[in-house]
Formats: sequence, structure tokens, C-alpha cells
Amino acid sequence: MLSKPQIRTITSLQHKKFRREHGLFVVEGLKSVMEFAQSDHHVNHIFYTSQAATKLLKIPRNIKCEEVSEDDLRRISSHKTPQGVLAVVQIPAHPPLTETMLRGHFHLVLDDIQDPGNLGTIIRTAEWFGHQRIICSLGSVDAYNPKVVQASMGSLARVQVHYTDIAELIRKAPVPVFGAMLHGSPLYGAGLGNEGLILLGNEGNGISPSLLPLIQKPITVPRVGPAESLNVAISAALFCAELVRSK
Amino acid sequence: MLSKPQIRTITSLQHKKFRREHGLFVVEGLKSVMEFAQSDHHVNHIFYTSQAATKLLKIPRNIKCEEVSEDDLRRISSHKTPQGVLAVVQIPAHPPLTETMLRGHFHLVLDDIQDPGNLGTIIRTAEWFGHQRIICSLGSVDAYNPKVVQASMGSLARVQVHYTDIAELIRKAPVPVFGAMLHGSPLYGAGLGNEGLILLGNEGNGISPSLLPLIQKPITVPRVGPAESLNVAISAALFCAELVRSK
Repeated sequence: MLSKPQIRTITSLQHKKFRREHGLFVVEGLKSVMEFAQSDHHVNHIFYTSQAATKLLKIPRNIKCEEVSEDDLRRISSHKTPQGVLAVVQIPAHPPLTETMLRGHFHLVLDDIQDPGNLGTIIRTAEWFGHQRIICSLGSVDAYNPKVVQASMGSLARVQVHYTDIAELIRKAPVPVFGAMLHGSPLYGAGLGNEGLILLGNEGNGISPSLLPLIQKPITVPRVGPAESLNVAISAALFCAELVRSK
Repeated sequence: MLSKPQIRTITSLQHKKFRREHGLFVVEGLKSVMEFAQSDHHVNHIFYTSQAATKLLKIPRNIKCEEVSEDDLRRISSHKTPQGVLAVVQIPAHPPLTETMLRGHFHLVLDDIQDPGNLGTIIRTAEWFGHQRIICSLGSVDAYNPKVVQASMGSLARVQVHYTDIAELIRKAPVPVFGAMLHGSPLYGAGLGNEGLILLGNEGNGISPSLLPLIQKPITVPRVGPAESLNVAISAALFCAELVRSK
């Protein structure tokens, strides 16, 4: 049975402040928990109900596993219908971004993205298209928010999410800076080369005005119908796909 | 001031059962309300707070508008922070799908899509790429669910969402049937021609086993990294984009 302080600590991890304080975050669901357990992440503790026990055979032996009641799992879960398995994982310290990391690759750079579902979907999609890291502005939603973890469908176990001052990053970038915008060169045939930063803006306001002068080439997804804009995760996916297709 | 029965009726529209019973749904936010007011939809009633009043100048004169208190708007809104404008709109009766409608176009066909954010995003994205209608299985989430309306960002005002027995539709389809799947011909260079149905599966389970034999050509988005799958709205967008690009 879980103690009250245990329950309090784990539920506190639903809030960024306490995630930072403890250096921990929560992963839920068998599939996602397995992916973190089999990744470079340090998984502190896995809690599971008796129903889920038989599915946990492949968990590495050095991870502390504890069977809890359905009621206890419900107490520590952020889901309405918990999925039987919950892990407490250490927030990794990614190595700082270097020029070498940026060269020869494309990186998505997210400017104050707010919706956790969007960030999770971008992480999942970026991994599908071979990206190993994503760069977020300091004002972006936290990648260890439970909704981001959920929407990333396990991809957060492998994709590094870096938070940095993106204005400074872009100013010093050793690679071209492209902006995903409503007006610009059409994405198809834009000739983006072999490396660069793809800057994507906030859901409501787009790219910050202060960053616009730093963009070397605005790029747009050609529009056919009257819709005013695209969702940012959709834009990110279309850029990732085109970078692969046009290679 | 709104009466209790008025408040009860409007809040009941958050549930599909009552939307069907009344033939009505709710649209929130100035931008979306304006798009429905300027579309073919019949808008029964617009409620707004004094703060939003000045922004409503372009509303067609034949629509009944009523100023309400912030408290009343909060009572009828499904949002935690209501946006000052809420419209009650009639659910349109779309003409039945005919062979003529299907010929010469591509249509997305959604097999039991469940997440309202996904459906809304698909509607918005499809409109960007010039689609005028989307086809959903009878088990799919309702397009007039408030979260679908919100995620569609006004595109639901113009894109028709048809609900039909998709097994029957596919069996009788006068155009090729493509399936968005994890294994199949690569999307790029697949030569999809000029018309067809693009079948996309449920978030957790993919395309229903009973529909698989009806697919003439499985198509896959080439994968680079280890992610297991793509979000269904992302898949839909990549198909829509490729159909435009390869034209």
C-alpha cells in the first residue's frame, strides 16, 4: 500500500514546479513505460496493479517494481481511467547543444508552443522521420507534462527535447534558418539543402516578431482551400516529411 | 438574463444525444462564430458579453444576437475561460453521397476515429488542402462535439462531414480505395491517380479487420526512425499534402 507522502509526491509531479524540484516525471501505460525502461532513462520506480503484472515480464531487473491496488494506482494517476502501470522516471540532463550537433541535420525549433498534445505529437512525428532531438524556446510547454508524455507515445524515451534561448541559438546558428510561415517560398522544391533549423511558431500568434528578422528563408505549405492556417504539429510533420522525401 | 431552461438546453448540447434531439450544436469564440455566421449554416442565436460587443459588427442582420452577462456566458460555455461569444447553430442535413461526388476527387474516410481533437484537426487540414467533404464511419466521434468544433478552427463551417456505413460505401465505391497503413507502397511515387478514397484507421486499433480485404492498395508513409506509428491526423495531412504535391 502506498503511503500518503508517496501519493503526494507522485501526484505533485503533474506540476512543472514539482517535477523540477524532484527532477522526476511520470510515465503511464504499459507501452510507454516499457519504452522508457528499455531506453537510457533512469526509471526509479514502477507501480502496477495485479491485472497488469503478467505483462511486465520484460522489465529490466534493476528497476524497482511494486504491486499496488487499483485504488492506489487511481490515486497517483493523472488519467480518468488509469492503464495499470505507472513509472516514476528521472528527468535526463541532455548535453548542451553544440555547433557539431546542428551541422548536417535538420532540427525543429518550437517558439513558445503551448499545447501539450501538439508537443507530444511533434516528438512522435519527428522520431518517425528520424530526428533525434527537438529544440524548444524557454516559454514552451514542458516536455515532461503528463499530456506531452502521453501524446508522444513513447517517443520521448528516445528524442531529446532541449530548452534554450532560441533567439540566441538562431543568431549564432552555423546552419540556415527556415521559418514555417503563411507566406514564403513553397515547401515543395524549396531546396532546403542538407541542414538547418525549422522554426515553428506558437499556436495562436505564430513566430515571435523579434525572431522574424533572423529567418533567412520563410517557407510555406502551399494552400488549396480557404482554411486560414494549419495546426503546428501538422506543419511540423509536413516539413519533416518533405525533408525526407526530397533527399 | 438567460432563463434556466435556456441554460439547460444550451449546456445539454455538449452531449451528442441532445444535439441530435434538438438538431443544434454550439460554436464558441469570435473567429469560429463569424465563420459559421458567414457560411451556409443557419445560426439560430448568438450570445455575447459587453466586452465582445464591438467585435460583432459584421454579423448578418437576420441572426438573433443577445448580450448576456459574463456569468451567464460562463454557464452556457464548455470552456474554462469562455471567449465572449457563443452561437447556437443548426446541424445541417448534407445531401447523401453519390457516385458523382466521389468521382474525380480524393476523400478521406475515417474508420471509427475517436479523438475529437484529431477529427477537428483533420477537418481543418483537409480544408487547407482543398477538400470539401470528409467521410466518417458511424462509430466515429461526432463532428458537432464542442472539442471537434474548436479544433477545426472554423473549417467545419465549410467542410461537410458525412457519416455513413463505410463498409458499404467502400464495397460500392466507383473509385480506387487506398488504405493508410504501416506496411504498403511508399506514399511518394505511389501514383494514386486523380480520384479515390483514403481510408484511415482508429487511433488505437488502425483499420477494422473487416475492411482490410476491401482495400485495393495499402500505402505507407516511409519511416526513418524507430517511432511505431503516426498520429491519424498527421497521417491524414501527409496524404492530403502528397495528393496536392504530386498532381
